This record gives sequence, structure tokens and C-alpha cells, in this order.
Amino acid sequence: MSAGNMLVAQGGGPTAVINCSLVAVIEEVKRRQVKGTGKIVGALRSIDGLIDEDFIDLGKERPSNLKKICEAPGAALGSCRRKMKEEDYALILEIFKKYDIRYFFYIGGNGSMHTANAVYKLAIEIGYDLNVVGIPKTIDNDLAHTDHTPGFGSAARFIASTTREIGLDIKSLPTPISIIETPGRNAGWLAAASSLAKEEEGDAPNFIYMPERELKLDGFLSDVESSYAKYGRAVIVVSEGIKDESGHYLGAVKSEASRDGFGRGLPGGVAAYLAEKVSDILKLRARYEKPGLGARTSVKYISEVDRKEALLVGKKAVSLALKGMSGIMVTLEREKSKKYICKTGTVPLEHVAIAEKLIPPEFINANGNYVTDAFINYCVPLIGKPIQSFPSLIGHKLRIYHS
Amino acid sequence: MSAGNMLVAQGGGPTAVINCSLVAVIEEVKRRQVKGTGKIVGALRSIDGLIDEDFIDLGKERPSNLKKICEAPGAALGSCRRKMKEEDYALILEIFKKYDIRYFFYIGGNGSMHTANAVYKLAIEIGYDLNVVGIPKTIDNDLAHTDHTPGFGSAARFIASTTREIGLDIKSLPTPISIIETPGRNAGWLAAASSLAKEEEGDAPNFIYMPERELKLDGFLSDVESSYAKYGRAVIVVSEGIKDESGHYLGAVKSEASRDGFGRGLPGGVAAYLAEKVSDILKLRARYEKPGLGARTSVKYISEVDRKEALLVGKKAVSLALKGMSGIMVTLEREKSKKYICKTGTVPLEHVAIAEKLIPPEFINANGNYVTDAFINYCVPLIGKPIQSFPSLIGHKLRIYHS
Repeated sequence: MSAGNMLVAQGGGPTAVINCSLVAVIEEVKRRQVKGTGKIVGALRSIDGLIDEDFIDLGKERPSNLKKICEAPGAALGSCRRKMKEEDYALILEIFKKYDIRYFFYIGGNGSMHTANAVYKLAIEIGYDLNVVGIPKTIDNDLAHTDHTPGFGSAARFIASTTREIGLDIKSLPTPISIIETPGRNAGWLAAASSLAKEEEGDAPNFIYMPERELKLDGFLSDVESSYAKYGRAVIVVSEGIKDESGHYLGAVKSEASRDGFGRGLPGGVAAYLAEKVSDILKLRARYEKPGLGARTSVKYISEVDRKEALLVGKKAVSLALKGMSGIMVTLEREKSKKYICKTGTVPLEHVAIAEKLIPPEFINANGNYVTDAFINYCVPLIGKPIQSFPSLIGHKLRIYHS
Repeated sequence: MSAGNMLVAQGGGPTAVINCSLVAVIEEVKRRQVKGTGKIVGALRSIDGLIDEDFIDLGKERPSNLKKICEAPGAALGSCRRKMKEEDYALILEIFKKYDIRYFFYIGGNGSMHTANAVYKLAIEIGYDLNVVGIPKTIDNDLAHTDHTPGFGSAARFIASTTREIGLDIKSLPTPISIIETPGRNAGWLAAASSLAKEEEGDAPNFIYMPERELKLDGFLSDVESSYAKYGRAVIVVSEGIKDESGHYLGAVKSEASRDGFGRGLPGGVAAYLAEKVSDILKLRARYEKPGLGARTSVKYISEVDRKEALLVGKKAVSLALKGMSGIMVTLEREKSKKYICKTGTVPLEHVAIAEKLIPPEFINANGNYVTDAFINYCVPLIGKPIQSFPSLIGHKLRIYHS
């Protein structure tokens, strides 16, 4: 192992398996460590803590505790919503020099990869020897150049399970219109994943609306009516980031204070908005659910495949960095085989930074209100073992003598 | 076993264990059945199906399938939102005569007990020999004369677990204000149950607002500010049925079509409403979650205690009816002992019908923004084994040589 210390941080929103990647980094570093080599340093609160030099010695964490940390909700090191300024990067490099940090592992989404890339470039510019390796994570599955992202599979499992369970409830006591809002600002991957809940024609979800297509209220209402006419109910899944024909978030919180670190308005509220429209215009009783953060916190719905891959990318990042690779993010590459096989690859950080992977056209149906079989084939292996299936009563018609 | 057939139906909204009570009725009837005695009949879609004579022969259900039905979301027989008319009761008695139904088991909440009571009284009036026994269920825990209701423990477990998981997420990446909306129109039992998520000072939930106390916006905002000043965040749990000082639901869907079968406006939307107020007035980023139906559908959070008690009340109903008892609902009675011990009792249906059990004053703190220890002692045994606890990193401060 080369000289120098290693730093790891977690950026952006947590996922149900983000701590698996962290633990994999720590374990792999320890496995390869020989006496006299550097420390594995954790930056608390991501870049905020890095700049405050708020560091912990991860080499001293107990292995048995690390195992449990793997399935704790939230980012174990803490995260932040810092809007990076130009001078922050120089500051980071100063601190890296001060602590002799020679390896920087950043577990995050496209915003974090942008930061990692800027640090990587500045290190080259000033001639500081540093290996920067990005480790992907996001429930939104919107990172480019990777088949999918760790965190998505578990969130998809949560959304599919929740949709199936709510669908059965609504079937037994129709509301009759129920709208479920999922995370997903610009990319509808999680809303799309609700399709894995459906076993039979008529099952929830009846329609899925994704931000990749604008929502026309007329079309939406006529979809609701058609499902109601056919089944007496409709369970509809919508991404929080659905936009109208003029490109505005439907039902978004408009207040200034609720804009995010990048000044973007905070979506959310579309399900409430649409439920009110159904109620007002179609005169049908409508309710909505917004399980929200559950998609990234519900440890009961962790996908085993997702967990393994989150460990895999963490471990791989360490081995690539120790081989001298830098300025890259670890990716997941699916093999073109019948059985699901996924290996790791790499991509330059600058290709992932900021870029956003939307659902490709072949995964959305022509009407823009459901997914295609191609999407289902793509998504099924990611959620792990099939979600729980529930029986019905056989329902033998009563035959009874009566006068 | 006396002559005549037995009918069972499920009324109102489902719970995670409502099917346990149904299965217990079926199994207990079969266990006691001898050749030549009556059938156990299921009315599909509750009173709607009863009046349509939409009956199935539950005696023919496979035992192995019934076991699985126990943990299926939704009401296995189906339910309805029928607004009962006077003539409906006479119709029910006509149908009971036609099918020689001599036992009527109704699994439901206070609305269903009102129906069961009316059927019971009419049978006496017309001299028809009928045993009516109510079986309690509701996630809302608002039935009178029972220590608690089957369905509540599992919903409470779901709310407490979800609050803890969301709390850990918010702690690692503060939003900083997060508002979670729980079911509960007039009774705040489920919001109160979120208190079981808290392990340490500062943990979620920081405040709980229940419909038993009116919400004053000023007080709410100053609570939010105080938590933010102290911890940099606030996770707040609110019942959907929170009312303002003039008794109106906050953020309720006002539309006519979304009124319930009893003409009551549909609450829900209070978390969105309060998040917007926090954002507008306090200029703090705020988000909200509305896991909604999850509280009654999430089979992963079933409380073992709740499941056992749901089976117990179903079984007990059959044995009481066969002893000739009628016009009663089975209750749960907690013994005054250190260890949690709960037995069954009975109460006349007319004492439960329509009555609503709100949280008693000794369970709510003086400020009306949290529960008391007495509530926690009451609630803890009902959710089964303790909810999952998650470790943190030990966080050994880094000691490193640097120039």
C-alpha cells in the first residue's frame, strides 16, 4: 500500500445501502493495510466537516459495529447540502496536504461527482499526488454511464412492495382513487419501479406518470375515468417531479426557503394536487399517499442484490485507487446474459458530474402513462428476490338449502 | 353446536391483522363443528354483499391458504362504506331468515358496531333468534370500553419504526424541518405512538400534535424554532385530523366528492399545510411525509402481540356466541400487573356503537405538544418486541501527525 492517508465521505441524500459502501471501503482498506501505512479517515458531515477538519479515525471502529452500521438508515458519517464555491476546492487541497491525504473516496450522486472531479483536477493543476475515486449511490438511479446505481434497487423494492400492499387495501375497500407520490425530480425511475407490484390485469398500479413526459390534466383525468369504469378503482403512481405543459412542477412548494442548495424549487405535493383535481372535476373520492423518505430509510425492504452491489463498488474503489487509478467513478455493468450478472467498470468523473440519466424512450409506453416490458426486464433483477405475494380467499360460492 | 348457519363480515377500513380475526372465527367454528351443523358463511363486501346475498362458503377454504390470508393486507372478504338506511336492517333480517343465519360476527370499528347493534335489536323486536357478536378492529384505537383495539399495535409499530428511520435520515442530512402525517381523524393515538421512536433527547419525534388539542399556529412555529435552535432540526408528527382554533381541519381536502360515507369532510393535507407555513414564515426548508395507508398495510411491521390478540378476539367471539351470548362486542382487558397480561371481556354493543375513545388527558403533556410517560407505558407492550435500534459510528476523534 502506498504512503499517505485515505479519506472517505458521503455526499447528498442517503440510501438504504449507502453505509454498505462506506463499510466496504473501511474493511477493504484494513484488509490491505500493512504496518506503517496510512489511516482511513472519515469526514463528518461530508464537505462541511472536511473543511472544518471534523475527522474521525475509521480504522478504530469495531468490526462488529460496522456490520450493524451497514443497515442503519441515514449516512453514518453525515452528509451536507453545501453549495460549493470556487475557494472551497483550494481549501480542500490545503487540508489534504496538511493531513497527508492521498486517497479521496466520495460516495455520492452527480453533484458529489462534480465536486470530486473539481478536486481531482485542481490536484493535478497544483501537482499534488492524489487518487480520487467516486462511489455511486442514489435512490433516483439517475447517474449516467452505469447500468444502475446502488440504492435504487432497495428503493424500488420499497416502492413496489408499498404499491402492492396499498393496492390490496384499496381493492378491499375502494377509495376509489388513490394516488401515490414517489421521489424523482427529473427522472421517473422509482415511479416506474411501482410496475413490479402488478401481478394481474387491474392490479395496482393502473397508471404511472414520470417526469420524462409532461402531464396533460385532460389525459390524466380520462385515464382515471377509464380505470374507474373498468375496475371501480384506480391506483396511480406519480413522480414528485411531474411537470405540466409549460414545464412547471405540479403542486410544488413554491416558497423560497424550500429551494434546495442549488436554488432549485422543491417539488412534492403533486399527489395532493391531483387528488384534489380528481375530487373536484370527476367528483370521485380520492386520497393520496406520500411515503417519501421511506424509499431511502426502510431497512425492511433492502434488496439483497442492491446490498451486495453497494459493498462491491466500495471494495472496488479501494482496489482501483491502490492501483493508482484516479478521476474515475466505479460503475455497474450488466452482462448481456439471460441470468443477471453484474460487474464493475469505471467512467471518468467528468462524464458523470451533473449529468442526469433519464428513463430512455424504450422504457415508457406510447401514451406516456405506463412502462414497457423492457423496463420491467431491466428492473426485476435489481430488487432482489420477488416481493411478497399475497393470497386471496378461494371464494367457493355458497350452496345452501333455503325455503 | 346449535342449529343454524353463521355469518361473518368485515366492516370499515382494514388493519394489518384484520384477517387474523376472520381466520380465527373460521378455524374456531370448524374446530367445534360436528356433522350436520351449520355452515360458516362469508359476506363479500360487508353489508353491501350481505344485502346482495353475495356469499361464500368459508368452510371450504383450505387451512394452508387461511394461514397465509392472516397476513395479507386489506380485508380478505372485502369491505364497504355503506351509509345504512332504516330499511337495510329489515332487509338483513329477511336474508338471515332465508339463509337460516343464527350467528352474526361483525369485525369492525364503532360504525360497524352501530350496525351490529341495530341488527341485534331488530332481531329481538321481531322475535328472530340471533346471536350477534362484534369483534373489534381499528388502527385508530378509538373504540370505547376496550383497553385497546386489534390493529392498533401493528399500526403503532409501523409509525414508531418509520419515525425512527426518518429521524436518522434527517439527522444525517438535515432538511431541517420534517413533518410526518399519521392517520387519526379525531383521536391522536397513532401520532402519539411515534413517541416510541425516541431513544435519546433530541431524537425524532421532537413534537407530536394530536387532535385532542387544537393547534395554535404561533405555538407550533415557536416549538419548531426551539427545536431548530437546539438541534439544528425538528421532526414533527401530526395527526391528519388536527384542527385550528375554530375547529376546522387544517389543510383538509374540501371538495364534496371527498367526504366520507357519513358526510364528514376528509382530513389529510395538514403536514403539507404546516410545511408550507414553516417555509413561508420561519424561512426554513421543510418537507413532509404522509405514509398514510402504510399504517394498515405494511405486513413487515406486524406486532406479534397485536396478531395474537386479533386471533384471540376472533376465537372468543365464537365461543361466546355458542354459549348464547348476544348484543356484545369482545373487548381486551389489561391486567393491573407489572408484566403485560391481556384477557378478553365483553361490553354491550350499544355502549361501543358510534362512541369514540379519545386520548385521555393524563396521556398528553401540559403544553399539548407531546405525550406523557404514562402513555408510553400504556403503548410499549402493544407494539410487540422493541422496534429495531440502529448503531452509530463510535467516532474516535482523528489523531494524526501533521506539519
